[in-house]
Amino acid sequence: MRPVAIVGIGQTPVREHWDAGLRELAVQAVWQALDECHLDTIDVFYVGNMLSGTLTGQEHLATLIAEYAGLTGVEAIKAEAACGSGAAAFRQAVLAVASGAAEVALAVGVEKLTETSTHKTTDGLASAADADYETAMGISFVALNALLMRRYMYEYRYHKSDFSAFIEIAHRNAVHNPHAMFRHRVHRDQYERAKMVADPVNLLDSSPIADGAAAVVISSQDRINQFPNRPIWVAACEVSTDTIALDNRENPLWLKAAERSVRKAFKTSGLTHRDIQLFELHDAFSIMSALSLEGSGFAERGTAVRLANEGHFAIDGLLPISTFGGLKARGHPVGATGLYQIVEATLQLRGQAPKAIQLPDARIAMTQNIGGSGATIITTILSRERL
Amino acid sequence: MRPVAIVGIGQTPVREHWDAGLRELAVQAVWQALDECHLDTIDVFYVGNMLSGTLTGQEHLATLIAEYAGLTGVEAIKAEAACGSGAAAFRQAVLAVASGAAEVALAVGVEKLTETSTHKTTDGLASAADADYETAMGISFVALNALLMRRYMYEYRYHKSDFSAFIEIAHRNAVHNPHAMFRHRVHRDQYERAKMVADPVNLLDSSPIADGAAAVVISSQDRINQFPNRPIWVAACEVSTDTIALDNRENPLWLKAAERSVRKAFKTSGLTHRDIQLFELHDAFSIMSALSLEGSGFAERGTAVRLANEGHFAIDGLLPISTFGGLKARGHPVGATGLYQIVEATLQLRGQAPKAIQLPDARIAMTQNIGGSGATIITTILSRERL
Repeated sequence: MRPVAIVGIGQTPVREHWDAGLRELAVQAVWQALDECHLDTIDVFYVGNMLSGTLTGQEHLATLIAEYAGLTGVEAIKAEAACGSGAAAFRQAVLAVASGAAEVALAVGVEKLTETSTHKTTDGLASAADADYETAMGISFVALNALLMRRYMYEYRYHKSDFSAFIEIAHRNAVHNPHAMFRHRVHRDQYERAKMVADPVNLLDSSPIADGAAAVVISSQDRINQFPNRPIWVAACEVSTDTIALDNRENPLWLKAAERSVRKAFKTSGLTHRDIQLFELHDAFSIMSALSLEGSGFAERGTAVRLANEGHFAIDGLLPISTFGGLKARGHPVGATGLYQIVEATLQLRGQAPKAIQLPDARIAMTQNIGGSGATIITTILSRERL
Repeated sequence: MRPVAIVGIGQTPVREHWDAGLRELAVQAVWQALDECHLDTIDVFYVGNMLSGTLTGQEHLATLIAEYAGLTGVEAIKAEAACGSGAAAFRQAVLAVASGAAEVALAVGVEKLTETSTHKTTDGLASAADADYETAMGISFVALNALLMRRYMYEYRYHKSDFSAFIEIAHRNAVHNPHAMFRHRVHRDQYERAKMVADPVNLLDSSPIADGAAAVVISSQDRINQFPNRPIWVAACEVSTDTIALDNRENPLWLKAAERSVRKAFKTSGLTHRDIQLFELHDAFSIMSALSLEGSGFAERGTAVRLANEGHFAIDGLLPISTFGGLKARGHPVGATGLYQIVEATLQLRGQAPKAIQLPDARIAMTQNIGGSGATIITTILSRERL
């Protein structure tokens, strides 16, 4: 495989965008990313999106967005892996350039969740679970996470309020991210008083329903010098899967797909846990932060919540997470999330993050995008230097 | 890019499968393809599908099917490009192996259109068009094709009954294909009496709503000798796009994306029109056969219908099309269609087609899968020898 690097990025603010549809949001992010590179076209175009068909009656999304971005004619394909769709599109762009089929590729993730009723959106999100054996029984996505959280609390003897640490970290960082949906701090007493959604998951455990788009331009090494920004190298981008339904797993508290995709990413890059300076994880629910950290090998089983309370994952901790607010406070426009994570890690490695959340001398970052309750996990390692 | 070849194929019959859902259909095709290669796993898994979310409430389809095929853990991503989703998944599998990221990849296309009301399926299919500027006005997919057919008849002075030739060819070939939905001949007088759907498109101009799945296994050259079947080489697989909405095109009768993807495929393979011995085209509607042949350079503008009537595209003609019945008579399970075409071309090149439709000494075949009214076109060239 040929080495590839990120040479351009773009993102819209994450919020309820009542003045922009899918195509307008996507095009904003695409143009920003192309402008950064002084490009007006690319060789291949991938869109990450989960719910455009179900919520807005629009499939065939990649070709549509290519057209509205002024790229008619370009190769365009949509990638879908539920909430992991953004990183899935990124993975395809990496393969297209690494194979030599393309010199410059663009991946954009976009989701528009607020164009319909919340009820319909909740149903749509549940289509990441097993339609015949989970959602047919009436379980929602929040309820699946509630089962996991309850079991984790029982197994490792945590109190509900212990999870507050993850929410506090995310919101503290989001204050400084101009693209974040919730730019305010959250304190433990607010967390403890938050409205219950599906016991024990409360409103502050849950990432918000939101709209947004994020894009990256990827280039081969041959073309790298033509771009004004420092290239950020893709040291690894690896996908692994697990069963969709939780009840098919040996141990629902262990994300096998995280373990496997991280192992593959370290094998591909030659790096180890020690090299990772920040971890943009998939905190769709606070329980997912804990499971992701443990499955990925950044915390022993049952210890992630304790480490969070000890400051391990704060912006000045040993392994900062959710440095721009994460899914929790930046917001979670499903199919766009994986690309927001990659855009944010790129800003950190370029040294372009807002001052209060910029990590000093960030050289290596990991991002992890999750589809469903851990059924598809895509782990990416980015590096300031070519490895 | 590394050379890649097709080493295994599988397909289910195309029909209304009342006894099998999405996952069962897909798994049947996947297992056939793996069995042919004596494989029990692969490195990466792509699913081509358009409407599982809209029609059956199931997104996250690639990981789900991987699980039910006994491949839990494998990299799995769904590719969507409307009716071009099957070949889009194939394209991703080719890139994964060509890049060196995988040695063996599997692409399966699957669609289940009959699990809901015909009304809902028709709405779903219309989501391949522009939701805001076409379908919001009430136009269906058949109606878009009716506009194209009417204009073609006016522009090139054809009678409606002239299009019968395409239907006769497809049905004559399908008689011999055990997987085809309609294994009976159709004669001109039947075509002329067929019920009108959207004038001038009648029932026999239209491919049927159907269920089905088709799969192929792709291997790198290094691993080719371990497989029992003769490898069929992927000489080219190229994607091009056009505007989604017909009214945004300079000339709606000219499929620019066909012209461009065929040009790219010839450039990649070093082949020319003369080398192509059969053409599995995307005859979702009979007008699409004509436009595809002309845009691809196999007929001058306005002449494809005349050539069809002269026997040019019959099984014993100069350029046989729809040799297994095409979308018209084999059936059109949307996201699976592109992979049915590739499976059928592979059978021709292996010399394994049923006797009455086997082309003597077939060495080079082209397939063309179309998303929407020509907005995404994926052209593949397969070869019996490595070029």
